Amino acid sequence: MLKAEYRARGPVPQDVIEAVPFEKPTLGEGEVLIELLAAPINPSDVLTLTGDYGMLPPLPAIGGNEGVGKIIEQGPGVESPALGQTVLLPVGCGTWRTHLVMQADQLIQLPNEADPQQLSMVAINPPTASLLLSEFVELQPGDWVIQNAANSGVGSYLIQLAKLRGFKTVNIVRRESLIAPLQDEGADVVLVDGDDLAKRVKNAISGAPIRLGIDAVGDTATGRIADSLADEATLVNYGMMSGKPCRISPASLIFHGITLTGFWLAKWFDKASPEQQMAVYGELTKLIAAGKLQAPIDSVFSIKDIKEAVALAAEGGRNGKVLVKA
Amino acid sequence: MLKAEYRARGPVPQDVIEAVPFEKPTLGEGEVLIELLAAPINPSDVLTLTGDYGMLPPLPAIGGNEGVGKIIEQGPGVESPALGQTVLLPVGCGTWRTHLVMQADQLIQLPNEADPQQLSMVAINPPTASLLLSEFVELQPGDWVIQNAANSGVGSYLIQLAKLRGFKTVNIVRRESLIAPLQDEGADVVLVDGDDLAKRVKNAISGAPIRLGIDAVGDTATGRIADSLADEATLVNYGMMSGKPCRISPASLIFHGITLTGFWLAKWFDKASPEQQMAVYGELTKLIAAGKLQAPIDSVFSIKDIKEAVALAAEGGRNGKVLVKA
Repeated sequence: MLKAEYRARGPVPQDVIEAVPFEKPTLGEGEVLIELLAAPINPSDVLTLTGDYGMLPPLPAIGGNEGVGKIIEQGPGVESPALGQTVLLPVGCGTWRTHLVMQADQLIQLPNEADPQQLSMVAINPPTASLLLSEFVELQPGDWVIQNAANSGVGSYLIQLAKLRGFKTVNIVRRESLIAPLQDEGADVVLVDGDDLAKRVKNAISGAPIRLGIDAVGDTATGRIADSLADEATLVNYGMMSGKPCRISPASLIFHGITLTGFWLAKWFDKASPEQQMAVYGELTKLIAAGKLQAPIDSVFSIKDIKEAVALAAEGGRNGKVLVKA
Repeated sequence: MLKAEYRARGPVPQDVIEAVPFEKPTLGEGEVLIELLAAPINPSDVLTLTGDYGMLPPLPAIGGNEGVGKIIEQGPGVESPALGQTVLLPVGCGTWRTHLVMQADQLIQLPNEADPQQLSMVAINPPTASLLLSEFVELQPGDWVIQNAANSGVGSYLIQLAKLRGFKTVNIVRRESLIAPLQDEGADVVLVDGDDLAKRVKNAISGAPIRLGIDAVGDTATGRIADSLADEATLVNYGMMSGKPCRISPASLIFHGITLTGFWLAKWFDKASPEQQMAVYGELTKLIAAGKLQAPIDSVFSIKDIKEAVALAAEGGRNGKVLVKA
């Protein structure tokens, strides 16, 4: 049994994390042993390793914030979940380990017939995409939304959720090669980022107003999204892929009335009622189980190869998520 | 009689404007001849000359957007305002001229005994300061506000209005020499901008939360104000003294829930009812006439010296407004 542990944070994330063996634990009353089926490496996981995230666990810590596993052993007094049942791992529990011991009554059961790799990504990126579309601007069917980092996990879910809700998306990417895959996912317009972006956006959608912009890049990319928006629009930042501050011109803020704000799922969780949380997760889990919502996967590594997995996840230029499994 | 006219826009504002003589006009029915008592050169006037403002008049145009004058001749049918009466010039009428012809019934009369130089600045900066304090965050007496460019026209009014309303101000400036003058105006805390600003702000006000930040500079100064704010605070930009985009970190937006937005008085005017406008102006005119609200004046030029006046206004490093008079 292996766990992907880090005892320090540092600029090169694969240098601080390593696969460490541990003994098979003895199960206590009400506990189950779970084998990891799949867990993603999200951008927030990489930022947690480098120390750049908004919430940092005490050290030493185990990486990973979401994933799914299956029950392989029941402790004393456990009747459910059954052996072999697919379960959602609690968010933030340190999911990058081959085996985990959990309280049986804390686990949410997931459909065994659904793809566990797709289900492993349900807890963070799909609700982020869903809430970016619902929490800031009251969109109507037919309305346009623009986002950059459109080939990210969140970006891909956002394209699909927007389509399911009847919204249209302008998607900004950094490489020509990403245009066709995103169109296949349901993107209405895909453009490569560049200085004249606002003009090309305007041409592509015949000047239709865009009241919601979504930025996960920062730096001058933020300003190019701002320039593409209608007056009085809202621009929401949820990521910092450039590693640099957002740049937005006073002219956008003052003369065009653009408001720049941020979204953090952890904060939404703190404020949302259990009913609101269940409503969001219930919808998303059903869509994923039904194959109506999915994210591209770049590659799957075993926990023993955690350094390679993290190194790949921290690089740009992929077209899909990096996952780990037992 | 002279008018300060420009026939083109360009990067050096004093190069495009010049004092041009004109003939004394014949007054028509209901018209009056006004001699200019004072008109300020605001940052927005300089940006209009360089072409960087959000609203640009057709060329050729006369500079100046606010000011006061006195009635020196009445046309046929005019009984009021009386000869010698101080009047507010209509906003945006091109105030930089020694003499103006106006419809008598469009003019707002001002107290003749009040200082016309102070009254000449009532229409733009005081309502901007007043509305920055009231339109974004519901402040309570004792609450803190932080602003940069604190020695600007708006900054100076904001210090005084905050004090009148019971709010406390942290004021950021770029030179040590500005600390004492701002303290004299009623500033609670004055600090020189720099990398460790947030820490010094925190120390100066013993960690009190600041829910409203005000930025007129842009560039990295925006981010330093953002770093000084409480979680979920609002940061309002109303100027671009650096000439560069606002820079704010995704961490401020996402993890600290800061919202960055803009304020433009012209847009507020478009939306506000006549009653709302009168309420704001009525209060401010009374305060200025009573000497309770005033702005430092750097120097006063005649219209014939408009090039020197504009050159000085466009420079940094002053400690007060540049005015023109007949």
